Amino acid sequence: MENRTIGVALLGLGTVGLGTYKVLKAQREEMVYKIGAQLELRWILVRNKERAAAKVDEPELITDRFEDIINDDKVEIVIELIGGTTSAADYIEAALKAGKHVVTANKDLIASDHGRLMDLAKENGCDLMFEAAVAGAIPVITPLKQSLAANHLSEVMGIVNGTTNYILTRMEQDGMEFGEALALATKLGYAEADPTADVEGLDAARKVAIIASIAFNSRVSVEDVRTEGITKITPDDIRYAQEMGCCIKLIGMAHSDGTSIEAYVAPMLIPKRHPLAAVNDSYNAVFVRGDAVDDAMFQGRGAGELPTASAVVGDVFDVARNIVHGCNARISCTCYRHLPVKKMEDVQSRYFLRVEVEDRIGVLAELADVFARHQVSVDQIIQKQRHIPFHEGTDRHTGDGTDKELPSAQIVVITDVVREGDFQKAVQCIRDKKGTRQICSMIRVYTAE
Amino acid sequence: MENRTIGVALLGLGTVGLGTYKVLKAQREEMVYKIGAQLELRWILVRNKERAAAKVDEPELITDRFEDIINDDKVEIVIELIGGTTSAADYIEAALKAGKHVVTANKDLIASDHGRLMDLAKENGCDLMFEAAVAGAIPVITPLKQSLAANHLSEVMGIVNGTTNYILTRMEQDGMEFGEALALATKLGYAEADPTADVEGLDAARKVAIIASIAFNSRVSVEDVRTEGITKITPDDIRYAQEMGCCIKLIGMAHSDGTSIEAYVAPMLIPKRHPLAAVNDSYNAVFVRGDAVDDAMFQGRGAGELPTASAVVGDVFDVARNIVHGCNARISCTCYRHLPVKKMEDVQSRYFLRVEVEDRIGVLAELADVFARHQVSVDQIIQKQRHIPFHEGTDRHTGDGTDKELPSAQIVVITDVVREGDFQKAVQCIRDKKGTRQICSMIRVYTAE
Repeated sequence: MENRTIGVALLGLGTVGLGTYKVLKAQREEMVYKIGAQLELRWILVRNKERAAAKVDEPELITDRFEDIINDDKVEIVIELIGGTTSAADYIEAALKAGKHVVTANKDLIASDHGRLMDLAKENGCDLMFEAAVAGAIPVITPLKQSLAANHLSEVMGIVNGTTNYILTRMEQDGMEFGEALALATKLGYAEADPTADVEGLDAARKVAIIASIAFNSRVSVEDVRTEGITKITPDDIRYAQEMGCCIKLIGMAHSDGTSIEAYVAPMLIPKRHPLAAVNDSYNAVFVRGDAVDDAMFQGRGAGELPTASAVVGDVFDVARNIVHGCNARISCTCYRHLPVKKMEDVQSRYFLRVEVEDRIGVLAELADVFARHQVSVDQIIQKQRHIPFHEGTDRHTGDGTDKELPSAQIVVITDVVREGDFQKAVQCIRDKKGTRQICSMIRVYTAE
Repeated sequence: MENRTIGVALLGLGTVGLGTYKVLKAQREEMVYKIGAQLELRWILVRNKERAAAKVDEPELITDRFEDIINDDKVEIVIELIGGTTSAADYIEAALKAGKHVVTANKDLIASDHGRLMDLAKENGCDLMFEAAVAGAIPVITPLKQSLAANHLSEVMGIVNGTTNYILTRMEQDGMEFGEALALATKLGYAEADPTADVEGLDAARKVAIIASIAFNSRVSVEDVRTEGITKITPDDIRYAQEMGCCIKLIGMAHSDGTSIEAYVAPMLIPKRHPLAAVNDSYNAVFVRGDAVDDAMFQGRGAGELPTASAVVGDVFDVARNIVHGCNARISCTCYRHLPVKKMEDVQSRYFLRVEVEDRIGVLAELADVFARHQVSVDQIIQKQRHIPFHEGTDRHTGDGTDKELPSAQIVVITDVVREGDFQKAVQCIRDKKGTRQICSMIRVYTAE
């Protein structure tokens, strides 16, 4: 057994930083057997030294000067847990240029700058690892780069945001409205004070960009990922989904036929028999399909102090093993292809559409005709319920009052697999029709190939 | 990008061997970008050369002489897919002694000889990888050794035999008897002609031995794993389980509190809300609990030509990367602890017990008294149904005919967490009681800690 000591610096002592500190401590006695070296935490970089000193047993490690770290030759691994794309990016770049390996949980930075940073790491013979940036504790990046490397993957889809999965689970299991479920998520600490990045799908989009890049060996940036959140999902949608044997999940989708990539985040109807349908509450999961592996799924905690630290320290151990064996950058950037990301209008999907229309003879036939004219093949079109408008406000799309006396009906349409651009044009046409009172919802329906 | 060529030999061209041949071919153009080297298949060892030659495009690679391989200095990686513990063991030993790295899917051999072979690999500076030996395509070994290495794991439990999971799924979803479901599994190719190793849990036991050794860093051999199969499970048991909000799965259980290990295979009642409960048909899954990661689960195909080959070639790629970077044996044996495996009588569990007794006043109280005398704490004891014995044969445990006029009742007992030794003694005592007609079933109930 080697007796090498490897110096480590921790940048940031927030939730994940403190978790990483704790996990490094918990592994102190055994790590030498696992990795052939002893890790020595030499610095913890923070902004507020006093507040940080109260959290750790060795206040002498606390510093607010990054120079202490970059100038310490004994620091071989820098663990960046500050987050964001400003100072974190500067620190990571400086560390790599100084030949220090980097482990980070920074999804913002990796999603927007994955390629440049991986190249920089390679130039400097360094490891840059970021398992914790996608789906927290769940091993995703390592399996994609190693165990599943002998596949041509066609699909990687995931529930990669715990906040929205918790909200949708409460809406499904307890019949809550979106706002009520969000309030509960906030109260329980699953949602941040400003939940926008979560509920609008931006957080998931960052993870999709990272996953798609690795799964399809071609760089996908977060700007390539079209994003739709869950704020418009209603209990009615969930009830209709259940009638169809489905639940609604916010899905991060990455799909490739080998010539191009589809990457987007959107709520989707998922059949109950699909493994992702059983992933509830704040759990995350990533489902993979490949030419050899067939289907596989990884699930677990997508966030949290110790779960995220599990992934961070797993990476740190891997870097340390590489140092011991002199093989850093053993697995560097795997984006050796240059596949275009499809425009969203060219993506194909099935759709669930719910429209409120005036209830009169011929309205179903008119809708069916609109779809036909736009090359949108319809699988089912069903009149679900009728009701008398209880005040004029219900009559949202016709202002002239000519049809006030007609009751409303809800029409549910399930399309076949259609081109999004065609579908959107058909919906626009329906929206503009005189008898249309409201487009209630429009949700993709997952279909396995 | 390196232009190194690495010679590979394939031992065996059965289902997994042929799958591996196909996956290596499918990856031929891209592998150099993934691993920095080109793999060159140089030999395929088989017993029947003619039959094998018909399966491949390069019949000149076929040989029936292992010497061709061991004497070929260009062969750096030997892929052993013969199976069994006789010639396969000799070939692996010879390969390692000759400094050739080994990838194998041989669960029999790894389960019985993991320690010795890992030591031999290390002595010779070789990699010995076996991801495919546990749960087929699903990455389990690599995540346990890498991504989850920063954990103290307390539990690794899995559905690691697809045949029995398929049978139990048919029994649950279609109300089949065991024999009927087995016949269907055989017809569909999920069960072998002699299904003993599957249905009696021996195949799962091998995988548990491997998983437990790696999860708890302490060698567990297959002889340490007490094994119980599913042949006695009846549709009645499944119905009762459903009433309790559970399903019945054949679970490979590895549990440790850090001072000892519990390792066994047994059918268990699993709550429907547990992720393993949703793993149906021939799918496998491994559920992990650790101090940092919390809960995680990996699921996918546990067998099959291409899925198993996905894991085999994933390992081959990893070995090749190590060769390119000069760091073989980077992760060698991780069994640095020596924990005892608990005797089964000392294992603690909850139990579901179903007994047929003569239906008379006081019988519940008598059973409760037997449990109390054996320190078995009972959670529920319920009289489920009564029926008149339709012939004398029903009266299995009392031969003297004195209670023939009494009808039968079924009693269902759910215990608290109790010591298996105490429970078995209580059951023996109940079995010997005059009023007991039959111990219908006795199944563990999974309880999270």
